[in-house]
Amino acid sequence: MTERLDFKSNQQNSPEYLAINPKGRVPALVTDRGTLTETPAMLAFIAQSFPQAKLAPLGDPHAFAQVQAFNSYLCSTVHVAHAHKGRGYRWATDEASFADMKRKVPQSVGASFALIERDMLKGPWVMGDSYTICDPYLFTLAQWLEGDSVDLSTLPKVMEHRNRMSERPAVRKVLGEELAPA
Amino acid sequence: MTERLDFKSNQQNSPEYLAINPKGRVPALVTDRGTLTETPAMLAFIAQSFPQAKLAPLGDPHAFAQVQAFNSYLCSTVHVAHAHKGRGYRWATDEASFADMKRKVPQSVGASFALIERDMLKGPWVMGDSYTICDPYLFTLAQWLEGDSVDLSTLPKVMEHRNRMSERPAVRKVLGEELAPA
Repeated sequence: MTERLDFKSNQQNSPEYLAINPKGRVPALVTDRGTLTETPAMLAFIAQSFPQAKLAPLGDPHAFAQVQAFNSYLCSTVHVAHAHKGRGYRWATDEASFADMKRKVPQSVGASFALIERDMLKGPWVMGDSYTICDPYLFTLAQWLEGDSVDLSTLPKVMEHRNRMSERPAVRKVLGEELAPA
Repeated sequence: MTERLDFKSNQQNSPEYLAINPKGRVPALVTDRGTLTETPAMLAFIAQSFPQAKLAPLGDPHAFAQVQAFNSYLCSTVHVAHAHKGRGYRWATDEASFADMKRKVPQSVGASFALIERDMLKGPWVMGDSYTICDPYLFTLAQWLEGDSVDLSTLPKVMEHRNRMSERPAVRKVLGEELAPA
């Protein structure tokens, strides 16, 4: 079951949600052994819990580390760069700083995606021929590119990947639900 | 073999190092199958490559995800908060913004460590009775607390962990080498 939070009403910091995830962030995965947080950890958990789905190279520590490194880059560099557009209050206090951070986002997010385009995305999937837990995570962040005013024409591989992802039946289903009125 | 980079001369962006890690960041782990980056991925690689060292709960996806979630929090939230002290240019352009970011660091890093103190560090080690790959990573970041002007008296468990870590023979050895003149 998926529960969506309303960020406009700051629901991620409500007492009910903080009891689930004290960090006040999404996503959180509630399991019968407790809540898991942090996207790279949750994705690895899903891959390891359903080995038959082959969502990561589980038997190869080096290949698995490459998967984890990619997802770690997304969370610690790409997502963080993007977050400076609207969440500057996490790291500064003045309105002028927020505006300055916001102006830098096309450049900082653009540079991160340029590196993904040039060095990381092997194609057709992130890790090459096999679809892994890297693919839905990249897809999620790549949907923010227009909003971050990144020049899409410099990212042909990323855009091709985004298109390929958006055609998967499971992705179409989830996006349909996400875009439906609440 | 460990190679140290000189950040003062921007060695992390030298052509030689960019050939190893195009991100221009440390650390990077060179293996005979290629370079690995991103601390949580490198630590998981070490744990999986040397299972007899028992550095992570490798056979338990949920417990492994908790380890990964802790390390992911360190890289994407704690380290990022700290980086706003001296690397504001990654996310902004104006000197005034850099100064504003710098002023916020005691609060943002302090809040991250308060959460670690209250909810994450089980004791005596991060994950409880077993020493894992979470411990050296927390130790590394906890050494920045004084420089980040965080009130240490609010973090008794973190400080006890830091002391316990610093007494381990391997840690003493590495610190001795790190503090030795270049």
